[in-house]
Amino acid sequence: MCDTSSAAPHLPPEGEQRVVSIGDLATEAGVTIRDASIAFRRWGAFRGDPHGKNNILLVEHALTGDSDATNWWCEAVGPGKALDTDEWCVICTNALGSCYGSTGPASEHPDGGVWGSRFPAISMRDMVNAEHAFLQELGISRVHAVIGGSMGGARTLEWTLLHPEEVDYALVLAVSARASAWQIGMQTAQITSITQDPAWQGGNYHGTGDTPDAGLAAARRIAHLTYRGEMEIDERFGTSAQPGENPLGPFREDGERFAVQSYLEHQGVKLTKRFDASCYVALTEALNRHDVGRGRGGLNKALASSTVPTMIVGIDTDILYPYHQQEHLSRNLGNLLAMAKLSSPVGHDAFLVEARQMDRILRNFIALTRDTPSAHDVAVSRGSYDI
Amino acid sequence: MCDTSSAAPHLPPEGEQRVVSIGDLATEAGVTIRDASIAFRRWGAFRGDPHGKNNILLVEHALTGDSDATNWWCEAVGPGKALDTDEWCVICTNALGSCYGSTGPASEHPDGGVWGSRFPAISMRDMVNAEHAFLQELGISRVHAVIGGSMGGARTLEWTLLHPEEVDYALVLAVSARASAWQIGMQTAQITSITQDPAWQGGNYHGTGDTPDAGLAAARRIAHLTYRGEMEIDERFGTSAQPGENPLGPFREDGERFAVQSYLEHQGVKLTKRFDASCYVALTEALNRHDVGRGRGGLNKALASSTVPTMIVGIDTDILYPYHQQEHLSRNLGNLLAMAKLSSPVGHDAFLVEARQMDRILRNFIALTRDTPSAHDVAVSRGSYDI
Repeated sequence: MCDTSSAAPHLPPEGEQRVVSIGDLATEAGVTIRDASIAFRRWGAFRGDPHGKNNILLVEHALTGDSDATNWWCEAVGPGKALDTDEWCVICTNALGSCYGSTGPASEHPDGGVWGSRFPAISMRDMVNAEHAFLQELGISRVHAVIGGSMGGARTLEWTLLHPEEVDYALVLAVSARASAWQIGMQTAQITSITQDPAWQGGNYHGTGDTPDAGLAAARRIAHLTYRGEMEIDERFGTSAQPGENPLGPFREDGERFAVQSYLEHQGVKLTKRFDASCYVALTEALNRHDVGRGRGGLNKALASSTVPTMIVGIDTDILYPYHQQEHLSRNLGNLLAMAKLSSPVGHDAFLVEARQMDRILRNFIALTRDTPSAHDVAVSRGSYDI
Repeated sequence: MCDTSSAAPHLPPEGEQRVVSIGDLATEAGVTIRDASIAFRRWGAFRGDPHGKNNILLVEHALTGDSDATNWWCEAVGPGKALDTDEWCVICTNALGSCYGSTGPASEHPDGGVWGSRFPAISMRDMVNAEHAFLQELGISRVHAVIGGSMGGARTLEWTLLHPEEVDYALVLAVSARASAWQIGMQTAQITSITQDPAWQGGNYHGTGDTPDAGLAAARRIAHLTYRGEMEIDERFGTSAQPGENPLGPFREDGERFAVQSYLEHQGVKLTKRFDASCYVALTEALNRHDVGRGRGGLNKALASSTVPTMIVGIDTDILYPYHQQEHLSRNLGNLLAMAKLSSPVGHDAFLVEARQMDRILRNFIALTRDTPSAHDVAVSRGSYDI
C-alpha cells in the first residue's frame, strides 16, 4: 500500500475534505476495525521530499474538533499566519473514532448498519496508527512537524514515540504524559451521563429515532467547566440572573436560572447539534487510556526515550491539564526544544482563544524548527564522524 | 420566646443531640417554614454571661455535615485540642435544610407527610436566622466566636453581617464572599443529576419506596472531584486499574474500571446510605444563592461594613473555593483579624484533614481572640473617650 517513490503526494484542492481508505486497523487492545477511513484537509502547496525533508505540518485537533483547522484555529492557520500556508503544507486529519468523516462508532459498518457498540475501545496510539496509515496511503513517510493541543497534544506525543523517524519536530500543547486520576474521574462522569441516558440503548441508538442528547448535553456542561478557567467564567457571569428569570425565587425551579446555567445549557445543546454521543464516548474513553508509559517501561522512561525535538506549552490556569503536568513533560522529555506558558484567565481553552500569545508561540516554534538540528540532522551529522 | 435573663442556658448532656423548636421561620425569598426545629450538640461547660462575654464557640458544619463536630472535626474539637472543650463551650447545630435532626425537605410536614417539594428554597441567611432563633430559644444572645469551613464558612460570614453585635470573633475557612459562576455550574450539574433521576418524582419520593440514589451518587462523584485536589487523587490512584478489573480491554465496559472510578463510586454510594437527596438539593441550591452582597449594596460594600474581627483561611490547591477568593475576602473585610493559608495537595477538604496545620491555625485564632479587642471592646473603649 505504501508509495515509496518520491513523487509529490496527490493532495485534494485546498480546504476540501477528502476521505482516504486505510484498510483494516488492529487496535492496541486487539480488535480489528475493518475498512477504516481517515478524513483530512490540506492547505498550502507541498514542497520537498515526501520521504525526507519537506514542508508538511500535521495539525491534530482536540476532542470534538474536525479536519478544518482553518475554522477552529482560524487565527493560527492561513496565508501569512503563524502556520503560514504560503510556506507550509498544513494537513489536518479527523481523528479515528470521531464523526467528521473518519471511521468511528457512528460510521457505517462494512457489514451494514452503524458500528455502534461494535466499535472497539481505542487509544491515542490507535488514532496515531490510523493517521500513519493515512499518510502512507498519500505516499508520505515524513513530516516537518506534528502540532496539537489537548487530545491533539496527546496524539502528537504518541507520534513522537511511535514514529520518531517520521517526525522532524513536535509541538505539544496543554496536555500531559498520561491521564490523571482527576481527569479520568471527570471524563468518566461524562461518559456515565451519556450511557445512563435511556436513549443510549447500549450504544446502538443510531437509526432508532432516539438519541442520548440529554446525556451528551450534560456531559458537555461538565466538560465545559474543565475547559474554561473559573476566573474567566466568573468574570463573564458571576451570580447574574439570566435576563427574565429569577434564580432567587421562593422555590428552586429549573426554568429560573443564573446566567451561567443558561450559558452551559447552550453549550450542551450546541454540541448535540454537531456531535455524535457514541463518538464522544469513544474519544473520551481514549483520553482515559492516554498513557505514554504503557508498555514502554513507565512514564519517564518513555519520555526519556523521545528523540524528536519537542516544544511543550501549558496554560497557567488550566485545571484539566494543570501546568505542572507540562513541567513534568519538559523535565523528562529526551529532546526538549523549548517550553512556553500561556497566561490567561481562560484556562484549558486558551490555546484556542488567546490568539496573540499563541501567534508568538507558534512563530517561535516554527523559527526553532529552522534553526535547531532535528534528530535526523544530528544523526546524519554524527554519522559522518562516528560511523 | 427570647429568654433575656442572664441565667446560664439550659444545655443537654455533653455530646447528646437535642432538637429545639424555633417556631415559624420566614425565608429570605418569602416563604414561611412552619414549626421549624434545629438540632444541636454541645461540649464543655458554659461560662460567662449568655448576653455578654462568654465561652461559646459556635461551630458550623459543611454541606453534608451534622451536629457532631467531635466526629467530623475530631482532631480539632475536644479536651486539650485546639477548640478545647475544657475551656470552651462548643455548640454545633445541624443546618436548616439538612437531614440530621433540623428541619429540611426530608422532615415531617406539620400537616402530615414529608415536606418534599413543599420545602422552599433557602439561603445561607435563612440558615443563620434559624440558628439565631435557636440560640435565642436557649437564652443566648452572644457568642465568643463563630467558626466554619466551606458551607459552614458561608454561614459564619453571614453571621458576622446579620448579627454582628452577637458575634465577638469569626473564623471563616475555605469559602468565598459569594458563589462563583464556576461553582454554580458545578453545583447545578449535581442538582440536575438528582432531579433528572426518574426516582426523584418532583422531589416527592419519600414514602414511595424509591429514592434517587443513582442521581445522588452521581452528584457526589462530581462533587468529590471538586473537594479533592487533583494532585492528591492522582498520587493515590494515577492510572491504576481496580484490582481484578481491566479498564484497557478491547471494549469499554462499565465493570472494568480504573481504581479512581471505583473510589468515586464508593464515595457516591456511601453518601446515599447516610444522606437524603432532597436535602442535598436544598443545601446545594443554598450554596448557589450564597452572596453576602445581595441587598447590601454589593459585595465589597457588604464586606467593608463588617465590624466583627474575622480571620480568613484558604487552601493553596482548593479548586472549589480558590485561594484568590479568600484573598478577596481578606482585602475587603472591614475588620480582618488575620489570614492563613493551608499548603496541601488535598484541595478543599484540607481544612478537615490537614490536622497539624489546622491545629496551629485554630490555636492562633483562639490566641488572637484573647489578645485582640473585639468590636464590642473597641466600642466600649471608644465610648469612654468619644461619647
